[in-house]
Amino acid sequence: LEFTLEDGVLAVLGLHPARRSARAAVRIAVDLATSGAVTREEAVMRIEPRLLNALLHPTIDAAAPRDVIARGLPASPGAAAGPLVFNAAAADAAAARGQPAVLARIETSPEDIRGMHSAAAVLTTRGGMTSHAAVVARGLGTPCVVGAADLVLDLEARALKGRDGRLFREGDLITVDGAAGEALAGAAPTVQPEFSGALAELMSWADGMRRLAVRANADTAQDARVALGFDADGIGLCRTEHMFFEQGRITAMRRMILAETSEDRRAALEQLLPIQRGDFIGLYRVMQGRPVTIRLLDPPLHEFLPHGEDEIADLAEAMDMAPKAIRRRIADLAEFNPMLGMRGCRLGVVLPEIYQMQARALFEALAQSWGGDGQLVTPEVMIPLVSARREAALIRRSIDAVAAEVSKETGRAFVYKVGVMVETPRAALRAGEIAEDAEFLSFGTNDLTQMTYGLSRDDAGRFMRDYVNAEVFAEDPFHTLDRDGVGELLILAAERARDRRADMPLGLCGEHGGDPASVEFCEAAGFDYVSCSPFRVPIARLAAAQASWRARG
Amino acid sequence: LEFTLEDGVLAVLGLHPARRSARAAVRIAVDLATSGAVTREEAVMRIEPRLLNALLHPTIDAAAPRDVIARGLPASPGAAAGPLVFNAAAADAAAARGQPAVLARIETSPEDIRGMHSAAAVLTTRGGMTSHAAVVARGLGTPCVVGAADLVLDLEARALKGRDGRLFREGDLITVDGAAGEALAGAAPTVQPEFSGALAELMSWADGMRRLAVRANADTAQDARVALGFDADGIGLCRTEHMFFEQGRITAMRRMILAETSEDRRAALEQLLPIQRGDFIGLYRVMQGRPVTIRLLDPPLHEFLPHGEDEIADLAEAMDMAPKAIRRRIADLAEFNPMLGMRGCRLGVVLPEIYQMQARALFEALAQSWGGDGQLVTPEVMIPLVSARREAALIRRSIDAVAAEVSKETGRAFVYKVGVMVETPRAALRAGEIAEDAEFLSFGTNDLTQMTYGLSRDDAGRFMRDYVNAEVFAEDPFHTLDRDGVGELLILAAERARDRRADMPLGLCGEHGGDPASVEFCEAAGFDYVSCSPFRVPIARLAAAQASWRARG
Repeated sequence: LEFTLEDGVLAVLGLHPARRSARAAVRIAVDLATSGAVTREEAVMRIEPRLLNALLHPTIDAAAPRDVIARGLPASPGAAAGPLVFNAAAADAAAARGQPAVLARIETSPEDIRGMHSAAAVLTTRGGMTSHAAVVARGLGTPCVVGAADLVLDLEARALKGRDGRLFREGDLITVDGAAGEALAGAAPTVQPEFSGALAELMSWADGMRRLAVRANADTAQDARVALGFDADGIGLCRTEHMFFEQGRITAMRRMILAETSEDRRAALEQLLPIQRGDFIGLYRVMQGRPVTIRLLDPPLHEFLPHGEDEIADLAEAMDMAPKAIRRRIADLAEFNPMLGMRGCRLGVVLPEIYQMQARALFEALAQSWGGDGQLVTPEVMIPLVSARREAALIRRSIDAVAAEVSKETGRAFVYKVGVMVETPRAALRAGEIAEDAEFLSFGTNDLTQMTYGLSRDDAGRFMRDYVNAEVFAEDPFHTLDRDGVGELLILAAERARDRRADMPLGLCGEHGGDPASVEFCEAAGFDYVSCSPFRVPIARLAAAQASWRARG
Repeated sequence: LEFTLEDGVLAVLGLHPARRSARAAVRIAVDLATSGAVTREEAVMRIEPRLLNALLHPTIDAAAPRDVIARGLPASPGAAAGPLVFNAAAADAAAARGQPAVLARIETSPEDIRGMHSAAAVLTTRGGMTSHAAVVARGLGTPCVVGAADLVLDLEARALKGRDGRLFREGDLITVDGAAGEALAGAAPTVQPEFSGALAELMSWADGMRRLAVRANADTAQDARVALGFDADGIGLCRTEHMFFEQGRITAMRRMILAETSEDRRAALEQLLPIQRGDFIGLYRVMQGRPVTIRLLDPPLHEFLPHGEDEIADLAEAMDMAPKAIRRRIADLAEFNPMLGMRGCRLGVVLPEIYQMQARALFEALAQSWGGDGQLVTPEVMIPLVSARREAALIRRSIDAVAAEVSKETGRAFVYKVGVMVETPRAALRAGEIAEDAEFLSFGTNDLTQMTYGLSRDDAGRFMRDYVNAEVFAEDPFHTLDRDGVGELLILAAERARDRRADMPLGLCGEHGGDPASVEFCEAAGFDYVSCSPFRVPIARLAAAQASWRARG
């Protein structure tokens, strides 16, 4: 609506649909409320939460020089730098070394999905805004530039030629600016998104309207700082395994896994204890007084073992073992379906010393946090992949025993909770009895969706687009919670758990925590919190505010 | 109880627990009923169904010469011959070639489970009656001799030395007699178990008592004959993929899988059509007038591709392709979690021509069965791995279209059903709406158990014994149906399906169909049939009779 306002006379000049930017939409809504034209609540209700997506990613420092090597389409916002790699396996390996890579491909295909999960950014020379790379990267929140046709990729030589003829090889640092659609030489300095002005104002109004707490999935002190920058109410999922993938730690982890006896394993765990304790201290320091949900080790042990012959040779030397023995052990641990194998609390039941080390690390870290100038956090220890009550009972007892030991050693009385991650259909069905051994339940809807559908997220890429296009699935159930199936299990579990303990805290963690429709489901189901990736926390906060408002009618 | 009975005077001599053989127990029960001491029903109720296990396996022809090469413990009854192999992968490969092997190991470990599934028999040089090999083989119904200490196994040379010094190499035929605990040179002639005398009498009484039908899982005409020998009421699960693993067929199957275009795929399917049609004709001929449930292709396509370099080279030659191209395609099709991947009806939705070929084969076979001297079977076409109603709707429509085409071509009007295999938790939850597109539901409790627990049967071996010993699981849920979790999904699905269609036929197929406690569950849940391995059909019949009797109070 274009108009002039002169001496109190309003003259309408014309009406045309405005393609407003996200930032403009927020500013207009706040201005309208400030001027009294709408209420603050109405202003909050005007903003589609997904719109915020464009405002929530790191950008390249505008003051820095831009050494552009290619232009393409801005397929997924955000900026990230990393060493260049040319295939998904190399992207995985780089992430395992703690330095997520920029994955360059001609196009991506479903086989690349795992690599895209671990990449810092994705760059393709072909494809448009709805190409595979673009769609997947947006889903993951990974910066992505597609169709950078002025780049020449030589996959065999693992090299990339920029438009000015410069050559970049595997391992060279480059930066992807997904908002501008450009690739840059070197690691350009990035700026974290800031919450200020109209957006900060709008979010503070939203926070006043919402009932649901919004926590973040954060594995490191750095993640936690980002989460706090987005005003997360706590950490809903700290995946402790990520602490072990970092360089310098993975060898100790592998030593633990390759141990032949319980004694050797304990010795290796002794090495890991101070590392993990240090990580927890860092995390607690950032999170001051807020809840921190710490998930005990979840992935199958073979995920930590070396993949290629070079890595095997390195490990053999470090461990003074024959490469053959390491290869044999890798073969021993291989699984047909790792998602459904020896992982989660099954590790905790069969090899109890691992969780005992983790429990000791997190309580010792808590003891060391005493007397600082901050507030103590409340650790919420979460047991993954439970399918039977007794798993929770056994592990809970073991954690309580470690807490008592550390308490005695340090003279500190700990306040903590032990709860269960509900991510198998059976745990949802048996939530009533599991509630007897859990002080909170958190629904891990990524895995629960995989198991309810019998569908691996890593493998679904092959046909998910066909399925959604043919309306076999109304939506990709990994993006938006499937209310009819997975949702029924959540409702049923929530009812059964609260039948036993009316005040049982209930949360949801995983990708769905940042999806507005799924947040609305959690509001309606009476959950206490959702937890999502730090960059989606504001989206979840806004969605939670809108859901609360709608619920109040 | 020992006693004398002279001139009507009963003198008790002593009381001691008698370790009666299964055969004796049956004979005594029948004699008691025949003499009027107990009713027939009481006689049927006296026999523990599992006892029959010992009477239901092939034995070595007593008239044949026995060339014994080793003695060990009789760990699992039955006799079978096959080519000797020394590792699980070779056992898989032999089964894929249609010639199940005798797997010889020093001991078995969880890594061998898949190979044990595909082996004809298992032979170990170490271990006792409760060793891993013994426990697993009994569960699988696979003949097994353990602790054959007079054998010398040389795994590197892939050779086995018998007690008289004779050497047997990989591929040499040997026979395992699991009842006698002996290994024999060559393929000794086996005799199928016979149902005669007291046992036949008892089973006929049992059949008069039961409400549940008992069908068999049978993939070939040969399996079907065995099933009829055990008086199965029909086939509850014909796994059509097994037809393609046979030698001479697998190449056509691989040609189909490696096809780059829909046209190439159709051409390869043309080759498979007469093969599959012939198999169905054979099956129908045996099953005369009985229901035959035919499950459409279920496993992921990569299961059919070659495993080793030799096989790849052979296939490359047969297909006139570069081995490199084949290796690339194998890598393309590899999955992280095949159990949760591109399989079941997902194949049918994405590559519809495969199921269309199968439907054509089964209807053409039916048309060709007209006018013979037998009765027509009623094919029940089963759609696997459904998780959304629309999958069933799409595939059902496509099958009906093929039926109409073949009907028009042949002038025959077909009587058949199209139904859904309920094996994902979501299909169970959505059974109400799925029932709108299904003429029967069959619960595939193997996969349903895997998904409800988030537990792969192939990978669970590593910790299942620890879990059961520590009472984390009361029993192995793959042996006895988990009433609390999986069972609730079955009940809920049955209720929802019958709310839509009160007469919806409901069955259960899989290992649980032959487990007495699970059969009792099916009786209580009001299912129509169970389907199990042919050798377990009599156990299921007896269990069903007892369950019906108990249900009547």
